[in-house]
Amino acid sequence: MIPYAAPIRDLQFVLKDMGLLEQVMQLPGCGEVTPDLVDAILEEAGKFASEQLAPINYSGDKQGASIENGVVRVPDGYTEAYHAFVEGGWNSVPFEAEYGGQELPWTIATAVTEMWQSANMAWALCPLLNQGAVEALQVHGTPEQQAAYLPKMISGEWSGTMNLTEPQAGSDLSLIKTRAKRDGDHYRIQGMKIFITYGEHEMAENIIHLVLARCEDAPEGVRGISLFVVPKYILKDDGTPGERNDLRCVSIEHKTGINGSPTCVMSYGDNGGAIGYLVGEENRGLEYMFTMMNNARLAVGLQGLSIIERSYQQARSYALDRKQGRAGDKKLAPIADHADVRRMLMTMRSHAEAMRGLVLETMLALDQQKRHHDESWRLWSERRVGLLTPVIKGWFTDMAVELTSMGVQIHGGMGFIEETGIAQHFRDSRILPIYEGTNGIQAMDLVGRKLLRDEGKAAQEYLDEVHILITALNDVEGDDMAVIRKRFAIAVDTLEDATEWLLDTAKDNPDAVGGSAAYYLRAFGITAGGAVLARAARTCLEKLAQDPQGDTEFLKAKIATARFYAENILPQVPALFIAMEGGWQTLRTISDDAL
Amino acid sequence: MIPYAAPIRDLQFVLKDMGLLEQVMQLPGCGEVTPDLVDAILEEAGKFASEQLAPINYSGDKQGASIENGVVRVPDGYTEAYHAFVEGGWNSVPFEAEYGGQELPWTIATAVTEMWQSANMAWALCPLLNQGAVEALQVHGTPEQQAAYLPKMISGEWSGTMNLTEPQAGSDLSLIKTRAKRDGDHYRIQGMKIFITYGEHEMAENIIHLVLARCEDAPEGVRGISLFVVPKYILKDDGTPGERNDLRCVSIEHKTGINGSPTCVMSYGDNGGAIGYLVGEENRGLEYMFTMMNNARLAVGLQGLSIIERSYQQARSYALDRKQGRAGDKKLAPIADHADVRRMLMTMRSHAEAMRGLVLETMLALDQQKRHHDESWRLWSERRVGLLTPVIKGWFTDMAVELTSMGVQIHGGMGFIEETGIAQHFRDSRILPIYEGTNGIQAMDLVGRKLLRDEGKAAQEYLDEVHILITALNDVEGDDMAVIRKRFAIAVDTLEDATEWLLDTAKDNPDAVGGSAAYYLRAFGITAGGAVLARAARTCLEKLAQDPQGDTEFLKAKIATARFYAENILPQVPALFIAMEGGWQTLRTISDDAL
Repeated sequence: MIPYAAPIRDLQFVLKDMGLLEQVMQLPGCGEVTPDLVDAILEEAGKFASEQLAPINYSGDKQGASIENGVVRVPDGYTEAYHAFVEGGWNSVPFEAEYGGQELPWTIATAVTEMWQSANMAWALCPLLNQGAVEALQVHGTPEQQAAYLPKMISGEWSGTMNLTEPQAGSDLSLIKTRAKRDGDHYRIQGMKIFITYGEHEMAENIIHLVLARCEDAPEGVRGISLFVVPKYILKDDGTPGERNDLRCVSIEHKTGINGSPTCVMSYGDNGGAIGYLVGEENRGLEYMFTMMNNARLAVGLQGLSIIERSYQQARSYALDRKQGRAGDKKLAPIADHADVRRMLMTMRSHAEAMRGLVLETMLALDQQKRHHDESWRLWSERRVGLLTPVIKGWFTDMAVELTSMGVQIHGGMGFIEETGIAQHFRDSRILPIYEGTNGIQAMDLVGRKLLRDEGKAAQEYLDEVHILITALNDVEGDDMAVIRKRFAIAVDTLEDATEWLLDTAKDNPDAVGGSAAYYLRAFGITAGGAVLARAARTCLEKLAQDPQGDTEFLKAKIATARFYAENILPQVPALFIAMEGGWQTLRTISDDAL
Repeated sequence: MIPYAAPIRDLQFVLKDMGLLEQVMQLPGCGEVTPDLVDAILEEAGKFASEQLAPINYSGDKQGASIENGVVRVPDGYTEAYHAFVEGGWNSVPFEAEYGGQELPWTIATAVTEMWQSANMAWALCPLLNQGAVEALQVHGTPEQQAAYLPKMISGEWSGTMNLTEPQAGSDLSLIKTRAKRDGDHYRIQGMKIFITYGEHEMAENIIHLVLARCEDAPEGVRGISLFVVPKYILKDDGTPGERNDLRCVSIEHKTGINGSPTCVMSYGDNGGAIGYLVGEENRGLEYMFTMMNNARLAVGLQGLSIIERSYQQARSYALDRKQGRAGDKKLAPIADHADVRRMLMTMRSHAEAMRGLVLETMLALDQQKRHHDESWRLWSERRVGLLTPVIKGWFTDMAVELTSMGVQIHGGMGFIEETGIAQHFRDSRILPIYEGTNGIQAMDLVGRKLLRDEGKAAQEYLDEVHILITALNDVEGDDMAVIRKRFAIAVDTLEDATEWLLDTAKDNPDAVGGSAAYYLRAFGITAGGAVLARAARTCLEKLAQDPQGDTEFLKAKIATARFYAENILPQVPALFIAMEGGWQTLRTISDDAL
């Protein structure tokens, strides 16, 4: 198995060379997040990821999670790694200091989380879900709930889950049937939830379930859903876990990937009702859940980048090692010397770099949204994060499937043999376009909520910014930048046309929106990735000019990567706009019977 | 599990309405292949596929093939299905009548084979590999070898395999190490072969291995490879299987998909050497192997179509059944009513229709190559089949992964649960871009052997033909055809530019060819698929004009499908050409160390 090496230099490049850290440090409470501190964090996290998490990735997939008499067993090594993670303080990185968190900026937390997800996606889902639960309680929990649950969930001694889906209620949460009946100061919860990630396990002392349910007499639909805290073990008066609550894991799913992670069918209230505590007010549960869901969507997008990076590392290693055929003047050349294999490696690499920059820039905006002293800046940041969240979730995860497939392809026949380990990333990746809102839902979120609802304001802000970037690139000399600028400008102009087209078309034609939203999301992702790489190339050219004896090979590789992306990937944007304009027109022509 | 229904009406449309069968019937020996006979064959084959093969597809994947003490066990039901297949005469459909085959045209055999591969790809690999072996012996075997082996291989009582790959020799067969030592009238074979599909099993009485090996004193490289027949059981004087040969299955692979099919590591000659018989002359083995390989590549392309069709049927069924969310005036609508889901269904459907037409048209050319009385026609057909073989193998199978992934996506969370069955197609599909020559090899075959070697003659013939089609489409009235013609003409013009660019660029720049070949193959596939659908739409419009009371819904659906493809898929072609022209320029900029 190919070891995982955290891409520390690449992360440092985005954080430091591209100036993100400088902006982070200007935020209130972030003055101490110095470059040295960040270097130390990245180094330590990289070590933990490659030494503790990566080695149990393949074995965890092979062994899988299992259940016996209601007890869920995670794969060997998972529990030890979890305890080491908690003891190392890694679970608490981004959370509020008031409850024991380190309150490091999300920009830094995300750089670190990329590593956990690359090293072992199935394992890292446990802290990912916990993060969502912590955030929901940080924002919407009562002070008592916060005091009772947050310290342990932030340390990681307890873990958190999200319980949304029911068999009849997936993308459409208005159909939720789980019931909540008031019983004194708490509620009794009864119902069945499916697809509950880490819904049951023994790695943590307690599991704090956040559960969507319907109160008695609640209105129908999404406005009748409430959010509850339902602990696996009910807390005793001293705050420690006591009696077992009336909830259980009925079964775990047999999945295509992320097999180390138990995906649970949870039954609440088989014996009268699980005790649950209302979060916030009745009937506002979905609104609260979106607090955690938005962040979870960014986290799932990040998983897409992580698995691409992991697959890329393994494919690169294989391609440099495996020798087949003649190339150049070598009678027997590593397959990386064959142009088509090189093309695939560069496709994977350039996407990983574009995505890493894009998600970290978005996380900087999230930090600004949460911490900036200026309200108008906070509002600007909120719009930016809102706009890019579905792009990051949708584009990163669609590409995760395509690019981990490329990782398999580079391995030839060995790619299809499970022992090689590369197919696991491909299988694992397949959940990413589905969970936390399918990518169809993301596309509708982008076009409906993020574009049409504010009449294109957030999108126009973004487009104005990249237009300024294009103008600035005019001052950069050289062939590489000329090519990058040309391809990027076409993509941006097209994205602007596509945005206007959506704004013009939407009112009269819902099918035009629905049928083109996925193409728009893809076009947005590709263009936003292009913006990141264009900026990166400019930074590299500046650094090379300043210090021609510096890290030349590294910087030149980044410029070549940006140019590769400009010539190979950006040209898709105009094609996507053509499909947007006309593609939806035949969607309803064929009757269901003739489909 | 969703039952499989053979797409008989769609096959009839291509064969009969689009005029292929008429052309088949004009070929020598094909006069009796009447529409009625074809209808009967399709009906019976459809029944066999859906009743005997489809029901053991999911269970076969779950159970998988296994090995114990050298004995390979196929999944339950496989052997019974194989015997029923052989008894039904299905194994002998396309083969020479001289040895008991039915000698039906490949056009018809392919229509039928689509069904086996849709119903159960892992199972249907056994006859697929046998077909390649039969063809190699039909063309290159001695009369004695043909008499000894072909009747039983054609009936299916015995099965055949292809033994090419060794651990160090995959895409590069020049590296083969397996040795052959002359020993009287036969040879002794020693070596190890990997990835041998159905290399060992008990479904047939004997297994006839075709093995590539190197004779003593053979020249190095591909010109020193010979082809041998190596039966599992050596034939007795009466022609029946006798003593076991010195060969064995050492192990079977644990794969990502096609788990019902045993993929064997074969060891030859552990006890002195397996008895093998030379096919043709020494050192011409690779040339002979290409006889079977070309046909096998078409067969693997066909598998791509088959698995897309199977995944489409299941996704369509789910999308019409599963209700989530509001659409149009329905408060709770089937997800097929949501535009984005409809878009995905139409993407799958339109590709399946384009591919079905393209592979059958190519098979008609193959029949003409084999049977036409006019030599120049035979030569034309040979060029056409040669040109389209890598397109069919590469484009169909790349798309098979993408579109079975879409099939999973349409299922949402259920798609990732193995019991749903849709993920199996996605996993199964992943081998298709790899085996019988990776799609990178296909792209180089298209550009190197099929385009540059004849200085673009075959490609220009094809382009001339589609230009004539475009002109003819000018006479067809209506909006739908106007849109189709416009998008198709742009794709064709671009493909022509791309072809000229390759011819101009190739001499000076091997990287431009290698780095753009995959894009060219994709562009060729998309355009050729567009040609098929444009012709199909014209046929439908003509039929509607002739008989406005006819099969209106079916014909209108085909027109809408062609237009959907024109607006959603064909616009990719210009983007691919832009990537061709510039994309390769950065491939060598980054050193191996900086990758």
